[in-house]
Amino acid sequence: MRISELSTRSGVPLPTLKFYLREGLLPPGDPRGVNQADYGDDHLRRLRLIRALTDVGGLRLRDVRSVLAAIGDERLPVHDLLGVTQAALGRAHGGDGDARVSDPAVADTIARLLATLGWEVGAEAPARRSLAEALVTLRGLGWDVTEDDLARYARAVDPIAAEEVATVPDHGTRGEIVEHVVVGTVLFEAILDALRLLAQEHHSARRFVGVA
Amino acid sequence: MRISELSTRSGVPLPTLKFYLREGLLPPGDPRGVNQADYGDDHLRRLRLIRALTDVGGLRLRDVRSVLAAIGDERLPVHDLLGVTQAALGRAHGGDGDARVSDPAVADTIARLLATLGWEVGAEAPARRSLAEALVTLRGLGWDVTEDDLARYARAVDPIAAEEVATVPDHGTRGEIVEHVVVGTVLFEAILDALRLLAQEHHSARRFVGVA
Repeated sequence: MRISELSTRSGVPLPTLKFYLREGLLPPGDPRGVNQADYGDDHLRRLRLIRALTDVGGLRLRDVRSVLAAIGDERLPVHDLLGVTQAALGRAHGGDGDARVSDPAVADTIARLLATLGWEVGAEAPARRSLAEALVTLRGLGWDVTEDDLARYARAVDPIAAEEVATVPDHGTRGEIVEHVVVGTVLFEAILDALRLLAQEHHSARRFVGVA
Repeated sequence: MRISELSTRSGVPLPTLKFYLREGLLPPGDPRGVNQADYGDDHLRRLRLIRALTDVGGLRLRDVRSVLAAIGDERLPVHDLLGVTQAALGRAHGGDGDARVSDPAVADTIARLLATLGWEVGAEAPARRSLAEALVTLRGLGWDVTEDDLARYARAVDPIAAEEVATVPDHGTRGEIVEHVVVGTVLFEAILDALRLLAQEHHSARRFVGVA
């Protein structure tokens, strides 16, 4: 198909397509005569992935580039590819990419928690840092969150996370796996958070309705 | 205490204190001579609450004002006070405060889900809208999320939400209850989300390590 049809079928505006081609995010089409090229299903799939990374994942262009490079580097194992993806998502959602936990007591609590749970998690996982930041803020406000409290939350999300990982497609390409993980991570987080608020409202109604 | 001591003990800068006094967010102190006033523990507690609303909750000034007004209106039942608080938190985190769900099929799915779960949730709950938005986006991407999928997520967070509501202090003032709910809602959401990512990494390592 020509670039105009690629634009119509993908829903990506022509100037954006040209930008992606110039930046190397989208591979060039097969040359067809002067100033024309032919695009195929691979281009549609790549555009779908780029939109998942930018629109759903909120990734910055620099991070889109690094995720696409990791997809293209077949020597990189899938688990590491997903690590690159999660790190990019972490940066898109407020983290600065620095996974270090500055408070040693909090870092210890998290390390002990992970050991108790038997979870294998890399030292650089951005979620360690987000967890630590929430704990440091809570302690500053006088909330004492114990390892047991955290373990209860962890055990509640564990079966969900297990199922989410199990539903990552087996026979997909590396790009399809990344797309699935980005969409699943971001949108099911929104679902989980919304359901928690709805459940809180339900329990709050049972506890407080009639209380002045 | 004088306003300078109030500033030191609360950690709120003097110009901010004066702004809060001018805006009526902080009640005036007891007059002591010309241009002086005496502040007490109530002022410290109020400042702590305002900081929880702004720093942790991310509330806009307009919403801080409406939450404080709801706290002061003793005729408003606690459950409705918490509804005002959750609506303000919803607006602070990207919602526009419009709780309507535009897609009728999605609105039906959510209504059926809540009925199946037996959850009593107001028609105006902002989390209905966040849930609907995530579902609409997922359907647009070709993901078919069933009511059963949602029910599994809901059952995972239900005991957590029940415990969170149960730990809201019994004997607190209305302000302390709101403070607890804001801090709990925002920071334990961050904890839940981080633990889900850590659990995903663990399960991903078990599934994908060694897979090229």
